[in-house]
Amino acid sequence: MKIELKHGAGGVATSELISDLFSKYFSNPILNKMEDGAVLPALQGNIVFTSDSFVVEPLFFPGGDIGRLAVCGTVNDLAAMGAKPFYLTASFILETGLDSSDLEKIIQSMTSTAIEAGVKIVAGDTKVVPGKGGLFINTAGIGERNEKINISAHNLQFGDKIILTGTMGDHHAVIMTSRLGIETKAVSDCAPLAKIVDRLLAEKIQVHTLRDITRGGLATVANELAAASNVRINLQEEQIPVSEPVKGLAGILGLDIFTMGNEGKFFVAVASQDAERALAIIRKEKYGENAAVVGEIVEGKGVYVQNNLGSSRKLNSLQGEGLPRIC
Amino acid sequence: MKIELKHGAGGVATSELISDLFSKYFSNPILNKMEDGAVLPALQGNIVFTSDSFVVEPLFFPGGDIGRLAVCGTVNDLAAMGAKPFYLTASFILETGLDSSDLEKIIQSMTSTAIEAGVKIVAGDTKVVPGKGGLFINTAGIGERNEKINISAHNLQFGDKIILTGTMGDHHAVIMTSRLGIETKAVSDCAPLAKIVDRLLAEKIQVHTLRDITRGGLATVANELAAASNVRINLQEEQIPVSEPVKGLAGILGLDIFTMGNEGKFFVAVASQDAERALAIIRKEKYGENAAVVGEIVEGKGVYVQNNLGSSRKLNSLQGEGLPRIC
Repeated sequence: MKIELKHGAGGVATSELISDLFSKYFSNPILNKMEDGAVLPALQGNIVFTSDSFVVEPLFFPGGDIGRLAVCGTVNDLAAMGAKPFYLTASFILETGLDSSDLEKIIQSMTSTAIEAGVKIVAGDTKVVPGKGGLFINTAGIGERNEKINISAHNLQFGDKIILTGTMGDHHAVIMTSRLGIETKAVSDCAPLAKIVDRLLAEKIQVHTLRDITRGGLATVANELAAASNVRINLQEEQIPVSEPVKGLAGILGLDIFTMGNEGKFFVAVASQDAERALAIIRKEKYGENAAVVGEIVEGKGVYVQNNLGSSRKLNSLQGEGLPRIC
Repeated sequence: MKIELKHGAGGVATSELISDLFSKYFSNPILNKMEDGAVLPALQGNIVFTSDSFVVEPLFFPGGDIGRLAVCGTVNDLAAMGAKPFYLTASFILETGLDSSDLEKIIQSMTSTAIEAGVKIVAGDTKVVPGKGGLFINTAGIGERNEKINISAHNLQFGDKIILTGTMGDHHAVIMTSRLGIETKAVSDCAPLAKIVDRLLAEKIQVHTLRDITRGGLATVANELAAASNVRINLQEEQIPVSEPVKGLAGILGLDIFTMGNEGKFFVAVASQDAERALAIIRKEKYGENAAVVGEIVEGKGVYVQNNLGSSRKLNSLQGEGLPRIC
């Protein structure tokens, strides 16, 4: 079946689409009430609230799809605040001509990723626009954060060590090569990282800042954080983890690892004395095995990268277009 | 300035767009922290959580625009659950070629509507896709609901009176005539209705069910509610409020008032003994002056409309396409 405009009209066809696909997979007691809004139990502590839209093209790629991306992106934004993710909404803008079997695969992927990440999809919306068989997904998320947690972009402190939870550039490389039709062994890193954060906090690691390194890559994230905390970030070039396929592609295609996007990698800043312990905790986790300490926070401004000859260069945020529709 | 792909890349251009437009207007202490998620104070009672995407075309229409619609739609979904709306996210999918002055008008409209509705926009996201200068907006919302409130689609009770908060079909008529280039005095009813709900609850009206009458119109909403509560809904045709311009258009264009969409109208079911008092409260409010009692809940199934000759017909949910991209 192909999606038609009637599936977005709010009448019988919309209702059938919802019951045949969305409710079937996302089913849970809160969603199943089918009210105008989901009624949630009271939460302890602070609520963390976020939302992202996903427009990635192609819809399916090695290592994931737009559905997995949409769940991971919002789960990771909550986890990056030190919150435990609990509830998501999922709103779909479908283009006419979308094959319902592709939509079903995407919904199945969202369902399994939500289970993996420990979140429930409790509300949603479906619209249809004329198009060429694509779709956009928005997820909003609610998490719960202990009132004592102060993880923030503004909280980098002198001497903090910077850990990356894994290799840089994998998602970017996969989307680019998918579009160009280049064969590669690169796989998207699209993954939910809440469990890593949960372990760090459970082990009382002094985590000062966390950030999901997505569009704009490490260079952009590091510059935003350095500015927000009014510090300088020093990175060690040879410590940045990069997978072999991505290293090869970067060489051939002239890509800059520092501005390539990821979808399952965190920038983690911890108190210096906790760095080795934090690294060991992260490396034990499924999506943290390639974690590395890559730099530190010092006095000053901006972001600098030192190579193994000792020379240092300033690293700027992404200028220009990057790779459109990477997420 | 026209929106380009670089504005969605997550780099410098995205950052400038955010500071020049989004942060400038939406500014508040929570949003201004520019974290991966908004940290909210603890809320009392139950949290109500909802999300809708908006794809209306044209972007500007008599009585509103996509920005006002995006704020009202989510505010009204929260209010329809008996919740007080507090926080919204706003996520934009911009098409290339969109004029930034149009985007600015839309953001200004969202800002003033958010103030009117008493909500704060605390987080957001911006993506750019190739296109023809359009945009889509998703808003997610969080509201707070007293734990004792039991307003629900499943809560219609025999004898309940049904009140409509105003005239039917205005938004639908405006979008249709805008596209056809027909001159009309119809104005969209796009409005935030949280204050009406707030007043009803403050005055201890026994409200059993509330529903935002959007896509699919009264016929679809009434059928969904009758099924959810396992009751029959009887409507009195001559009591349904309809504005003069919409009545004229419906006659000329052969439109069915019962399946026409609205963006600022509630279906309200209250205990019979409270109906007159509820009506008086609603009529005193800015968006409730044309409210009317239009029917009641009886034993049985389905939705029936009685005309003033006493004959009764079954009213079905919207079949087919309705009007695409109405919201």
